[in-house]
Amino acid sequence: MKIGMIGGGSVAQTLGAALLKAGHDVVIGIRKVTDDELAKPRNFTNTLKDWIAQTGGRVATMAEAAAHGEVVFNVTGGLVSVEALKLAGAQNLAGKVLVDVANPLDFSQGMPPFLPAELSVHTSLGEEIQKAFPAVRVVKAFNTVGAAVMVNPAAIREAHDLFIAGNDAAAKDVVRGIATRDFGWTSIRDLGDIGGARAMEHLLPLWLRQWTLGGNPTINVHIAEG
Amino acid sequence: MKIGMIGGGSVAQTLGAALLKAGHDVVIGIRKVTDDELAKPRNFTNTLKDWIAQTGGRVATMAEAAAHGEVVFNVTGGLVSVEALKLAGAQNLAGKVLVDVANPLDFSQGMPPFLPAELSVHTSLGEEIQKAFPAVRVVKAFNTVGAAVMVNPAAIREAHDLFIAGNDAAAKDVVRGIATRDFGWTSIRDLGDIGGARAMEHLLPLWLRQWTLGGNPTINVHIAEG
Repeated sequence: MKIGMIGGGSVAQTLGAALLKAGHDVVIGIRKVTDDELAKPRNFTNTLKDWIAQTGGRVATMAEAAAHGEVVFNVTGGLVSVEALKLAGAQNLAGKVLVDVANPLDFSQGMPPFLPAELSVHTSLGEEIQKAFPAVRVVKAFNTVGAAVMVNPAAIREAHDLFIAGNDAAAKDVVRGIATRDFGWTSIRDLGDIGGARAMEHLLPLWLRQWTLGGNPTINVHIAEG
Repeated sequence: MKIGMIGGGSVAQTLGAALLKAGHDVVIGIRKVTDDELAKPRNFTNTLKDWIAQTGGRVATMAEAAAHGEVVFNVTGGLVSVEALKLAGAQNLAGKVLVDVANPLDFSQGMPPFLPAELSVHTSLGEEIQKAFPAVRVVKAFNTVGAAVMVNPAAIREAHDLFIAGNDAAAKDVVRGIATRDFGWTSIRDLGDIGGARAMEHLLPLWLRQWTLGGNPTINVHIAEG
C-alpha cells in the first residue's frame, strides 16, 4: 500500500520503518526538503538522512507525501497538526484514510505537559482535524502508546489494548488491518465515532505519570471487564 | 475505625454499607438532617431512611460526620466538593485522612460530561482540595471505577488496578489497608504525590465512553508493562 507520513520525527520514522519492512511504499513528508533538514539532529531518533540509508524509504514535502499515500499518518506535534495538514493540502487528503497519531500536549510550561483547554475540554485533536478536513476519513489510533510499542505490541506480554475511533467503519477496518497484520496487535477496542478521540487523548496524563514515576515507556492499558 | 462520609448519594451509601459490614463505625454526613431529606428519592440508590434501616449506619450533618471520622471520604459531586468540605469544617478534618473519591464532571451541557478547564488543565480536584485544606492528608482513590467495583473488585476477574495518589505516605497506607482488607483489592498502583490525581481524573472520559458504548459499568483499567 502507498503510505504517506506527515511529520519526520521519531514516531514517523519508527512507524515508517515498520511499514516499509511490512512491504508498504512509504514517503515521509516534511515542510522543506533541504540537505540541512535531512542532516538535522532530531529528538530521540536519527537524522532523516540516516533513516533513508537504513530503511530505503523516501522523504518529500508534506504535500507530496499526502498525494502519494492511499493511507496517510498524522505524526506531527498535536499543537501544530491542523496547520501541518493544511500544508499537506486538503485536496491531497480528500477521501483518504488519515490515521491521527498525534497528541495535543503543550510542553511550554515544563513537565508535565498539559492538554490545552481548546483541544480537550469540549473536543479533542481528532475531532478538530475531522472538522477542519470534512472530506478526510480520520481514524484516531496509536496515540496512547510509545512508538516502539505501536509497531511491536508483543514487547508487552500481558494483554493490552489498541484503541481506535472514527466516523468511517471502512477506514477503521484499514487501520485495524495495518495494526494486526503489519504490527501484530491482537486486542483492538473500537471507541466508536471520532468523539472517542477525547477518551484516548485524555489517557496521556496517566501514561506520562507512569513513565515519569516508573521510568518504563513500554506500558499500555488494558480494559478489564466483569 | 470511625469513618465519616461527606455526601449521601449512591457512592456514599455503597462505600458506607461495605465499611459497616467490615466492622467500621460509619456516619454519613449531609447538609441538613430532616425527615424530608432522609425520605428523599436519590439517583441510582436508596433513600437514606432505607439505608439506615438496612445497614444500621447513622446519618448526621457533614460537620458531625467529619468530626466523627478518623478517616473521612469525600463522596460529593466534584463540582461542589470544596464547598461541601468547607461545610464539613476544616477544623473537623485537620490532620485526618481524607479519601477523595469525587470526579469534577460537569453534566450541565448533556452527555458526555466534561472536566471543566479550571479543575483539569493545570490541576485536578484532588490537588485543589489539598490546596484548600493544607492540614488535611488527602488521598485520591476509587474515583476511576463505579461504586459496585470499589467495594467488590472481584466482580472483574481479569487483573485490574486501583490507583492512589497523595502527599502523605502513611495516609496512603491507611487507604491501601481499607482497599485490600475491607474490599479485597489486590493490585494497587501508587501514582505518587497528589499531582497523580490529574491522571486519575482524566481517566473518566474513557470510563464513560466504554460504559456508554458497551453498557457495562463493571469495567476498570489495568496497566500492562513490558
